[in-house]
Amino acid sequence: MAKKKKNTLQSHLTDAVSSIGKLVSAPLHFVRPPKPTVARKIASSPGIEHAKGVDVPPEDGSIPIQCIDFGKSGCEKTDFRNVTDLIAHPRPEWGGFRWINIEGLHPFIINELRKTYEFHTLAAEDVLHTPQRPKLELYDTHTLIIVDMVRLKNEALTSEQVSIIVIGDTLITFQETPGDVWDPIRTRLQNPDARFRRYPLWYLAYALIDAIVDNIYPILERYGDVLNDLEEQAMEDPKPSIQQHIYLIKRELYALRRSFWPVRELTSKLTFDETSPVEKKVRVFMRDVHDHSLQIIELIESSREMCNSLQDFYISVVSNRMNEVMKALTIMASLFMPITFFAGIYGMNFEHIPELGWQYSYPVFWGLCITTTIGLLWYFKREGWIGKK
Amino acid sequence: MAKKKKNTLQSHLTDAVSSIGKLVSAPLHFVRPPKPTVARKIASSPGIEHAKGVDVPPEDGSIPIQCIDFGKSGCEKTDFRNVTDLIAHPRPEWGGFRWINIEGLHPFIINELRKTYEFHTLAAEDVLHTPQRPKLELYDTHTLIIVDMVRLKNEALTSEQVSIIVIGDTLITFQETPGDVWDPIRTRLQNPDARFRRYPLWYLAYALIDAIVDNIYPILERYGDVLNDLEEQAMEDPKPSIQQHIYLIKRELYALRRSFWPVRELTSKLTFDETSPVEKKVRVFMRDVHDHSLQIIELIESSREMCNSLQDFYISVVSNRMNEVMKALTIMASLFMPITFFAGIYGMNFEHIPELGWQYSYPVFWGLCITTTIGLLWYFKREGWIGKK
Amino acid sequence: MAKKKKNTLQSHLTDAVSSIGKLVSAPLHFVRPPKPTVARKIASSPGIEHAKGVDVPPEDGSIPIQCIDFGKSGCEKTDFRNVTDLIAHPRPEWGGFRWINIEGLHPFIINELRKTYEFHTLAAEDVLHTPQRPKLELYDTHTLIIVDMVRLKNEALTSEQVSIIVIGDTLITFQETPGDVWDPIRTRLQNPDARFRRYPLWYLAYALIDAIVDNIYPILERYGDVLNDLEEQAMEDPKPSIQQHIYLIKRELYALRRSFWPVRELTSKLTFDETSPVEKKVRVFMRDVHDHSLQIIELIESSREMCNSLQDFYISVVSNRMNEVMKALTIMASLFMPITFFAGIYGMNFEHIPELGWQYSYPVFWGLCITTTIGLLWYFKREGWIGKK
Amino acid sequence: MAKKKKNTLQSHLTDAVSSIGKLVSAPLHFVRPPKPTVARKIASSPGIEHAKGVDVPPEDGSIPIQCIDFGKSGCEKTDFRNVTDLIAHPRPEWGGFRWINIEGLHPFIINELRKTYEFHTLAAEDVLHTPQRPKLELYDTHTLIIVDMVRLKNEALTSEQVSIIVIGDTLITFQETPGDVWDPIRTRLQNPDARFRRYPLWYLAYALIDAIVDNIYPILERYGDVLNDLEEQAMEDPKPSIQQHIYLIKRELYALRRSFWPVRELTSKLTFDETSPVEKKVRVFMRDVHDHSLQIIELIESSREMCNSLQDFYISVVSNRMNEVMKALTIMASLFMPITFFAGIYGMNFEHIPELGWQYSYPVFWGLCITTTIGLLWYFKREGWIGKK
Amino acid sequence: MAKKKKNTLQSHLTDAVSSIGKLVSAPLHFVRPPKPTVARKIASSPGIEHAKGVDVPPEDGSIPIQCIDFGKSGCEKTDFRNVTDLIAHPRPEWGGFRWINIEGLHPFIINELRKTYEFHTLAAEDVLHTPQRPKLELYDTHTLIIVDMVRLKNEALTSEQVSIIVIGDTLITFQETPGDVWDPIRTRLQNPDARFRRYPLWYLAYALIDAIVDNIYPILERYGDVLNDLEEQAMEDPKPSIQQHIYLIKRELYALRRSFWPVRELTSKLTFDETSPVEKKVRVFMRDVHDHSLQIIELIESSREMCNSLQDFYISVVSNRMNEVMKALTIMASLFMPITFFAGIYGMNFEHIPELGWQYSYPVFWGLCITTTIGLLWYFKREGWIGKK
Repeated sequence: MAKKKKNTLQSHLTDAVSSIGKLVSAPLHFVRPPKPTVARKIASSPGIEHAKGVDVPPEDGSIPIQCIDFGKSGCEKTDFRNVTDLIAHPRPEWGGFRWINIEGLHPFIINELRKTYEFHTLAAEDVLHTPQRPKLELYDTHTLIIVDMVRLKNEALTSEQVSIIVIGDTLITFQETPGDVWDPIRTRLQNPDARFRRYPLWYLAYALIDAIVDNIYPILERYGDVLNDLEEQAMEDPKPSIQQHIYLIKRELYALRRSFWPVRELTSKLTFDETSPVEKKVRVFMRDVHDHSLQIIELIESSREMCNSLQDFYISVVSNRMNEVMKALTIMASLFMPITFFAGIYGMNFEHIPELGWQYSYPVFWGLCITTTIGLLWYFKREGWIGKK
Repeated sequence: MAKKKKNTLQSHLTDAVSSIGKLVSAPLHFVRPPKPTVARKIASSPGIEHAKGVDVPPEDGSIPIQCIDFGKSGCEKTDFRNVTDLIAHPRPEWGGFRWINIEGLHPFIINELRKTYEFHTLAAEDVLHTPQRPKLELYDTHTLIIVDMVRLKNEALTSEQVSIIVIGDTLITFQETPGDVWDPIRTRLQNPDARFRRYPLWYLAYALIDAIVDNIYPILERYGDVLNDLEEQAMEDPKPSIQQHIYLIKRELYALRRSFWPVRELTSKLTFDETSPVEKKVRVFMRDVHDHSLQIIELIESSREMCNSLQDFYISVVSNRMNEVMKALTIMASLFMPITFFAGIYGMNFEHIPELGWQYSYPVFWGLCITTTIGLLWYFKREGWIGKK
Repeated sequence: MAKKKKNTLQSHLTDAVSSIGKLVSAPLHFVRPPKPTVARKIASSPGIEHAKGVDVPPEDGSIPIQCIDFGKSGCEKTDFRNVTDLIAHPRPEWGGFRWINIEGLHPFIINELRKTYEFHTLAAEDVLHTPQRPKLELYDTHTLIIVDMVRLKNEALTSEQVSIIVIGDTLITFQETPGDVWDPIRTRLQNPDARFRRYPLWYLAYALIDAIVDNIYPILERYGDVLNDLEEQAMEDPKPSIQQHIYLIKRELYALRRSFWPVRELTSKLTFDETSPVEKKVRVFMRDVHDHSLQIIELIESSREMCNSLQDFYISVVSNRMNEVMKALTIMASLFMPITFFAGIYGMNFEHIPELGWQYSYPVFWGLCITTTIGLLWYFKREGWIGKK
Repeated sequence: MAKKKKNTLQSHLTDAVSSIGKLVSAPLHFVRPPKPTVARKIASSPGIEHAKGVDVPPEDGSIPIQCIDFGKSGCEKTDFRNVTDLIAHPRPEWGGFRWINIEGLHPFIINELRKTYEFHTLAAEDVLHTPQRPKLELYDTHTLIIVDMVRLKNEALTSEQVSIIVIGDTLITFQETPGDVWDPIRTRLQNPDARFRRYPLWYLAYALIDAIVDNIYPILERYGDVLNDLEEQAMEDPKPSIQQHIYLIKRELYALRRSFWPVRELTSKLTFDETSPVEKKVRVFMRDVHDHSLQIIELIESSREMCNSLQDFYISVVSNRMNEVMKALTIMASLFMPITFFAGIYGMNFEHIPELGWQYSYPVFWGLCITTTIGLLWYFKREGWIGKK
Repeated sequence: MAKKKKNTLQSHLTDAVSSIGKLVSAPLHFVRPPKPTVARKIASSPGIEHAKGVDVPPEDGSIPIQCIDFGKSGCEKTDFRNVTDLIAHPRPEWGGFRWINIEGLHPFIINELRKTYEFHTLAAEDVLHTPQRPKLELYDTHTLIIVDMVRLKNEALTSEQVSIIVIGDTLITFQETPGDVWDPIRTRLQNPDARFRRYPLWYLAYALIDAIVDNIYPILERYGDVLNDLEEQAMEDPKPSIQQHIYLIKRELYALRRSFWPVRELTSKLTFDETSPVEKKVRVFMRDVHDHSLQIIELIESSREMCNSLQDFYISVVSNRMNEVMKALTIMASLFMPITFFAGIYGMNFEHIPELGWQYSYPVFWGLCITTTIGLLWYFKREGWIGKK
């Protein structure tokens, strides 16, 4: 039922947005992949060993598994239909690094890999139980990095958790759903001159995070365009729908900020901390990602600031309009009430109203009305109610 | 009398909430257990020795006492009706750890335990005098941890103080009222393979805190649902009751935040501080709790942010509506005032009004009225008062 | 004259408060003791030696002076009428500590004590020139602590500066006016088993500060009650007086916060700083005061937050009401303006109005009026202006 | 032209203020000395050597120069008409310290002194190019302190930059205009017992800064009085002029805060920093200034907070009033519109209106009018629009 | 299309501004140079080697290249039409430093220089891919500084990224477009006595940054003038256009702040950090820039604060005016509705209205009207609706 409601809201918002023909670019909406069915029970044993379904392997091929071995001498890419084949797959004789990419979360797969590579059961649990807060966890022999991969897919923002485990010569990535932003990296890996082949494995970790971070820029540009449209609209023709847009954008920017704020810490730790496992040679690249995450957070903050200013501006525009409307009403009422009263006077049926029989009463009456009106208009003019905007 | 007032408010709020049929899930209310009758007097001697009632044992069985001895070789659970029996209860020969759980606060019991286990009199006082701020106190030989256990009970949020004292091989927990979130832990203790049996005693402390922290997630999801409902309502059909809801939710989120903010510090100290008494093996689990407390605080903050945005949005909706209403009034008045005046003119009883006798006066009059009306409508249209929303 | 104004305001506020019968508990007001007549001149020589009146002893008995000697072997309390007697008073043979309490500020007394106990002239000046910011000043041989003692006296909050000087075996306290919160301490000092007798002198300093800090709790509870009342009123029957109350409470909470914020630092320094003069044995007690000051600040903050939320809520209630009033007016005007115009039409005196002579004109007219009214009502209903609240 | 505008604003503000007879004390306005004619060119060479006019000595006597030599054995004050005489002036045989005070900024004088005392060219430039941010600059052989001296002069706040250079046995002060708050210090220097004579030179620096800081207290008291007046007015008789006052006070408090915030850092560095050039004996005095600057900032913050609360309060008062006015209008219109319509009905000239000929029509009509009115009044009463405030 | 929109907005804003004759100085607008055509592809290889166009040299002379060799013995300035000539250009025999200034960004040029001077490929990429966040990057052998150069050009604010690379004896600067604020520096370099000739190369870096920072002052003064104008207008004659101005100024100040905030960190690191590559002799100058950047940020903050206060003030002015308008309407309606009703009464055509035939009815009627009016006016006066402002 909760899902149904959400859809209603979603469609409602889409309608709200599409109804504004003028906006060149509409705000984007976050779409989270459906919650995994394997939720952790409160006060249950920590670690993946006790997760529901840990003993039942998933259907063959239901979760794409890819393994890329690369090194100075070559690069081999293999796809698997199940994790057992992957684990059995031998390393090439020429050594090098191995990147295993799992495009789906299943307790059985994670646990098998955990047993093979001996990473911590809590790391495995963090991979499985999405959403986690983006973070960096240093274990004695391995490192866990969790970030959010935000992508534009069919005009909707999808956000999924990506877990990266660096353990010896192997780097394992887990995604929630198939599809990612790493295809250019896969291509570059084929290139014998690529730094991947010559640099330590952390260079691959850098490249993966960098791709995720850089992918935010076009999304932020999109928000920038929407805000520019809104600004223009607010200046030229402020409509109530503006406030709804601002509300939606603020909410999404806040979600984006919440998702990116910890990335800043994470890259900072990887770059500057003494305990960082990243090699000095690679740290200079990691610093670059750190700079970008700083810049992204500043861009988000500045968009939020702009939202707030626009909202203040819109509210004062509404106040001003109300003022104008009230002035119009007051002027109208002030002009017609007195003269309507005068007309009422001479519509009375008293037998003894001397003016009624007087010959020039009618033109004099008109004169009185016109004089009153002009007097009031002059007064309003002097008070600044008329003629200034 | 203060109690009576509270109930009135409570019932009032419940009514307010129940009157809104559309909200699938209503906001929750905090219920604190009644204040203990043993309040500390100002400037009285610190420590529990001088607390009122410290010499009078409570009625047998009025406060449930449970003792679980566990270790590599076994696990024994015993319930007691009074503290004297508990203290007399021997440890099993196979050694291991002891977890004593007291489900009620009584100065006599606390003092007896203090004398037996020799913990600090200020620690005992903190256990007794609720509510304390959640905190971690390191004494030379023992550690006191105070957290709030927030639970959903019969559609109300109950919050009670839980004090955990770790002293040598013994862990003592004090609750304010019977009932807790630890039943799964009691079950897991029976399992010979459970980490509890192999890990240091601090692993139990971790599990207890973890259960308390994890229990907040479903509560926050509930708030999330309420906020989604409110958002939908605000977009589709904003009613004044929304503001009351937002106010109540904000107040409760603030209370929740105040209760959780210090937990973050506490788990951080236990995890990262040099002086932390937690063993390295257990710290990695404690770090997990720390992550969860960070995530919970971010979720609370983001809900509060959403409340604020919704409120701003609602206020600007109200302003817009007022604008619409005012426009309607002004248009109405502007249309009818002039023509009512015209009608008034020719209702006058002057003897000499030439138009009265003229044959086409009446249709001309109607023409004048219609022209005026159309002119004004055109003006309003041009000014954007009609036809745009 | 400034004083007269203040009184006017005071009485005004009292009236404002007393006029609201429903509020069970009224907000409290701060009363500061009258400024000392010995104000320091700008750019004058620092230190107490040059203060005005430093050479003239105060009238005997005008300022109560009390000296308590206590130690393992006994406790002697003596009252003096002037400072010379105090200084001449010999220490008991059994040694121990001496607590001197001066209930009034006079340059002569402070200077005499300064000369006897050799504390710094700037410390003496800080004692004399109230109000100082609460602070901790470490001198080589002695320590100065300044805090605000806030008390409820005859339904008014009085705030006075308390200065505590710890110098060797002697602790000197200076108050601005007679009366304090320390009577239970004086009683406990008589008890041969009291910790005072066995612990270092700093334990007395702890007890004095603790009494001052703990005394804030009932005051905060009072504010809590007032806020609960206001909340209830705002929900059930929001009156304009609410905003005045909120304003007053916010102002007072801010004053309370300003007075307590530095206490937090002060106790933190005494507890955790390496340079703290407090003995380890006593620090654990000082930590307790520190916890309480943290909790008090959180309670104040949370009350302020509640004030702000209430204010937002009240403002949106006012907006909504205005909306209701405007709707009522608009509906009223829209219903009656058209039909009044119709009536005006047939009140015209044109000779040629065909309808006038028609037999069914009158009932048809009524039909027209009723149709118009029903049509408009239906329109308002559809627009949601009628029937929903 | 910019100057003319400023004057207009100034006079406008003065008018605004003077028009409010009730305010006992009016807000104060900042007056800065006119900008020096020697503005630094962008990207020009740093240092004073290239400043315009550095080669042309000012007219003799146009800038007052004073030199005070003081020490254990004596104190000599000499006034000079030009800087050459000052430099040629020999030190007394009994040694001691020299305080040179220049009451005006001229590149020639500053440069001559720089050449004599060999202070850094950037220090000289900071002295010349006002306004600088208050700051402390430690050079190898000397120290530059820049603070703002705010004074009340003829009911206006004047703010001028004061630069203090401590270099060996000499202390040089530069002011922008003649006149300062240091006369009591000059007097105290004559006193053979004064600490100046016995303490290091930094004691003089302390005394000069202390005089400047202490001089803010009466100004803040003045603002406190204005705010109390405004508060009283807002409670009793809120007028629109209140908002203008609040705006002006907020602006000035912000300026004051901006001018004092860096002083806090400055005194903190002089007191607590390891690198501070101040002798330990004098640091305890400097700490006193630091405390005062903290207290001043808290007082400013609390005044600003009060301004904001007052503004919120005033706005909600305005809203309430608008509500009252709207209610009055709505009640008026609701009462008269229906009965005016009834009267219109029977003013129609239809030939066939049966009621017209009926004998009791008129009293029945009145009965109808009165019944309608009473009914509406009862309705308004029930809705709470009448009788409650 | 996005560009077209921007222009529309731009012209719209210009119109808005120019329509206000009274404002002496109009707010300024940011103009960014058009985005470079060589945008970095997401997840592409980092570094400049793979940038599009890196192999194609730009047209000769299309990008101005200047090289200045300077040292104790001389200063030689040479302009080049392409980067190959520049690289081939020999250093003068008398040694010294070399400043290369490139007034345009082209991957070929940057890459050639990178290969020659061996700076890091990421530094080269940061130079190329504008806009970067202002930052300081320390590499092992060289330093990269990125700042924004904001200039007033034809009444518009242009902002372009300036990258400074200090590498051994060479300093390279990259600008986005031709034209800068460094002409005075070029002139000063010719002066044999200039510090440039005697000081380390970092002195040149200081001078370049200093020129950029100092150039903000006149821009801020311009904003100060606009704000003073707005303030004056708000006090004397508040028009709705004020809010639009405030919105625009706030947005631009925020952009300026965002551009300057990191400069503060950057100069702080260069001045105070242990790892700073700047020589001690030059650091004292760098500290000066740091002070200026602090002052600039405070000025920006204070302008923003003033904007916010002005906005609050304007909104309360609008509220007050609305109040005035509403009062006028209510008074008008209250005066005329009752007497119009009375006139309506005696316009009824009932046959039996006794008053109609009574001789003094008409004057009595007028008396009634006047009495009612005076009574209402007296009531309004008493309520304070008339006569007070």
